[in-house]
Amino acid sequence: MSAANELQAPAYTALAARELRLHRLGHVQAVATWDRMTFMPEEGREARAAAQLELSGVIQELRDDPAYDAHFARASAEPLSAPKQRNLELMRREHRLARAVPKDLANRLETAAQSASAVWHSARERNDWNAFAAPLEPLVAAVREQAQRLGEALGIAPYDALIDQHEPGVRHAHISTLFADVSSWLPDLVARAIERQRDAGVIEPKGPFPLDAQRALCERVMAAMGFDFGRGRLDVSAHPFTGGVPEDVRLTTRFKDSTFLPALLATLHETGHACYQQNLPRQWLGQPVAGPHSASLHEGQALTFERQLAPTPAFARWLAPLLAEAFGDDEAFDPANLVRLMTRVRPGRIRVEADELTYPAHVILRFEIEHALVSAAIEVADVPAWWDERMAKLLGIDTRGDHACGALQDVHWSQGMFGYFPAYLLGAMVAAQCMERLRADTPDLDDQVGRGRPRVVFDWLAERIWRHGAMDDLDERMAAATGRALDAAALRRHLERRYA
Amino acid sequence: MSAANELQAPAYTALAARELRLHRLGHVQAVATWDRMTFMPEEGREARAAAQLELSGVIQELRDDPAYDAHFARASAEPLSAPKQRNLELMRREHRLARAVPKDLANRLETAAQSASAVWHSARERNDWNAFAAPLEPLVAAVREQAQRLGEALGIAPYDALIDQHEPGVRHAHISTLFADVSSWLPDLVARAIERQRDAGVIEPKGPFPLDAQRALCERVMAAMGFDFGRGRLDVSAHPFTGGVPEDVRLTTRFKDSTFLPALLATLHETGHACYQQNLPRQWLGQPVAGPHSASLHEGQALTFERQLAPTPAFARWLAPLLAEAFGDDEAFDPANLVRLMTRVRPGRIRVEADELTYPAHVILRFEIEHALVSAAIEVADVPAWWDERMAKLLGIDTRGDHACGALQDVHWSQGMFGYFPAYLLGAMVAAQCMERLRADTPDLDDQVGRGRPRVVFDWLAERIWRHGAMDDLDERMAAATGRALDAAALRRHLERRYA
Repeated sequence: MSAANELQAPAYTALAARELRLHRLGHVQAVATWDRMTFMPEEGREARAAAQLELSGVIQELRDDPAYDAHFARASAEPLSAPKQRNLELMRREHRLARAVPKDLANRLETAAQSASAVWHSARERNDWNAFAAPLEPLVAAVREQAQRLGEALGIAPYDALIDQHEPGVRHAHISTLFADVSSWLPDLVARAIERQRDAGVIEPKGPFPLDAQRALCERVMAAMGFDFGRGRLDVSAHPFTGGVPEDVRLTTRFKDSTFLPALLATLHETGHACYQQNLPRQWLGQPVAGPHSASLHEGQALTFERQLAPTPAFARWLAPLLAEAFGDDEAFDPANLVRLMTRVRPGRIRVEADELTYPAHVILRFEIEHALVSAAIEVADVPAWWDERMAKLLGIDTRGDHACGALQDVHWSQGMFGYFPAYLLGAMVAAQCMERLRADTPDLDDQVGRGRPRVVFDWLAERIWRHGAMDDLDERMAAATGRALDAAALRRHLERRYA
Repeated sequence: MSAANELQAPAYTALAARELRLHRLGHVQAVATWDRMTFMPEEGREARAAAQLELSGVIQELRDDPAYDAHFARASAEPLSAPKQRNLELMRREHRLARAVPKDLANRLETAAQSASAVWHSARERNDWNAFAAPLEPLVAAVREQAQRLGEALGIAPYDALIDQHEPGVRHAHISTLFADVSSWLPDLVARAIERQRDAGVIEPKGPFPLDAQRALCERVMAAMGFDFGRGRLDVSAHPFTGGVPEDVRLTTRFKDSTFLPALLATLHETGHACYQQNLPRQWLGQPVAGPHSASLHEGQALTFERQLAPTPAFARWLAPLLAEAFGDDEAFDPANLVRLMTRVRPGRIRVEADELTYPAHVILRFEIEHALVSAAIEVADVPAWWDERMAKLLGIDTRGDHACGALQDVHWSQGMFGYFPAYLLGAMVAAQCMERLRADTPDLDDQVGRGRPRVVFDWLAERIWRHGAMDDLDERMAAATGRALDAAALRRHLERRYA
């Protein structure tokens, strides 16, 4: 920012400077988190938790500093460019949300989430719903209160306010309509796909697949997709994630030597997240307007790489010789077989293991239960029955009594995270809609991918999505990028084409 | 701390709580530093520097917070146990030193150090003393002013104040006496050792030594020495160091596949530092009294492992079969040959490559130049001539014109770090004196080490040194641990025995 701008907009400048400080402190916090998930020795856990909590406190204090309050009113009267106006709006939104939750409620949320997290893992291992329900009840009570407060601050319904934290501007009613659309055609499509795949002979890769070779393969694929290793790394953690900061993105995967596909697909998924992070607008680095802004858009980038691109015949043609080079010859590496391996439809109980076609059912189920729970239409004790009923209806699976593979399977609720689940299915819609448009814009897409230039996908997304940061809300960005607001039509066409 | 104690000593309690906060923020900072030296991708450098500077600012602000000033006077009147009194004394010392350097001087130091650091590396590569001298001059000017201010605050001479930062209570005059002692017998001993080794046939290990096998060997040796992998890790960096926090110690080494000894000895050195860190008194964690306190004592622990223990015939007897297991048979692994490899005397220009016997000369030289420079007895332009004259006198080496292997070789001065060098030789005295006493206390030491129980060294040091943290200054601790204050006698006896 030039000196002249600072003089004309001192209040905005002060607010932006605070954001940059928050970004920098958040950077150190992100490194500590990444280390905790990757390299930290087991017994370092307690000290690390205390250290990161201390830094969180510092960050929170800076965020809550009342000295900045007056700047918001003043900044509105300052001459600001359009991006700065948007940035101010985003800062104000964050400020209003932070002010909406009183400190004692924030503490209660934190404490209740800690209690629920503390028992979640062992309750899941012991299939013991009641052990988890006990701490979940006060947590849900606190979440309801939080939703109430946030809703009042934003002038929207409580569950809408929780969604809004991850997906600004998107409401429950709108998501319900989109999801109802999916529900109307999904069960029939799943049935047809299973029928169609019944006699498809799929050859399993033999293995073992040495971890070093898998890692080298993943890094090679990442580089071809456009990931910049000068500003990021691939490591290993119990659950794959993308962390770090845009200037230094840390993604992880996990390897087993019996199979290479899950690690490769997880890496592709995280590479989508990571490339988005690396290519957010640099000139606004550290400011909210630099994004990310929408969880669905973020998820959509990951799914474009993993679910849209990877299982195509073109990608498989490019991948096959790389596999042979990494692991030696295997008839399973035949491109058509690779496509079959990546598009197998097998309804199951576990969301994170679900295939592309049955995955939406897992999301819809959670969305309905979350909404009912936060809106106090049901209580914690009602969750298992709702779960069983919907799993039977949506996927024809009997889950009664199997809480470990039912309502205990996800970590989200134990952390007090409600309102995020919809992003997984909205993200699939984002990915399908982007790929449909990308394909229309790039007639030789398959040819380029097949010849080892999957970066064509990177280029399109960078131009249409990534470089715009948080300048627009989800539907605005989708309309600008693809020609229309987000809907389920492209996802349906994609799934029909691939599976029916 | 119990609630009763807090009520009786509210001022002390507030000061101790601040130390714990500083410790926790320092923890996050330490993780970021470790990552920077080990895993951070190259282009992440700039953002990381900004992020760590931001956190440094937060830490400095907490350290400088005038709200704590009044607590020091009040705490003196509170009923405190002996360790708490010592802790208060250490906190007060730190406070006084922080107050002694005004903010603008601290900024000047920081800026000048950044300028000097920025050119040091390339100046060394180009053997260009003048390019480095230009930014070193304002840095030395700032360091002189810093030394003046600190000296006034402590009531001691300027260079003494710089030493005191690393070695509380130790003065230039005392070190001069100790170093003069070493200078009086070292050149003759070096000459005798070279003469004696002239015809010793040393078999070089063949290699190559696969990095994975080297790493596994290092970790095995570390574990046997007593390093706790539940609370620490070994990684790789350009220069070996020990970082992290006592609860999670991160040490590094560096591997080349042509040779294994430098990496193994560097690992042993850092393991000495690391075990000390891991075994500082836990009940005072985060408080200054938990230590470390003396740079020489810290260095002494590293040298006890690397220089005292590793080159003994007993250690070589234990090591030989581990080497064969790691790398296959090699006649160089004969224990007597391993000892010869680890005790070769070869005077050279580079401190960090120097053998045990010629190393003291490198330190004495730097100590003399530093003192003259900080006391304004010489100027930056005089350094090369002083260097040449002393290298000729102490080691008989002609260094004229070779600045890269002369005054440009170390990173310390480029960072404004003056007063640390003496710790390297004082540390050698600490190590020799500890080992002499340990040997007297443990008649079967060689037998235990040879049978794979090098941990006997760990146990002695943990009991006599480590668990006492910063309860005592260097000489007090040495007297308590070994029966007398630090001197050069044990080092001389050790070197005479090993080399003459």
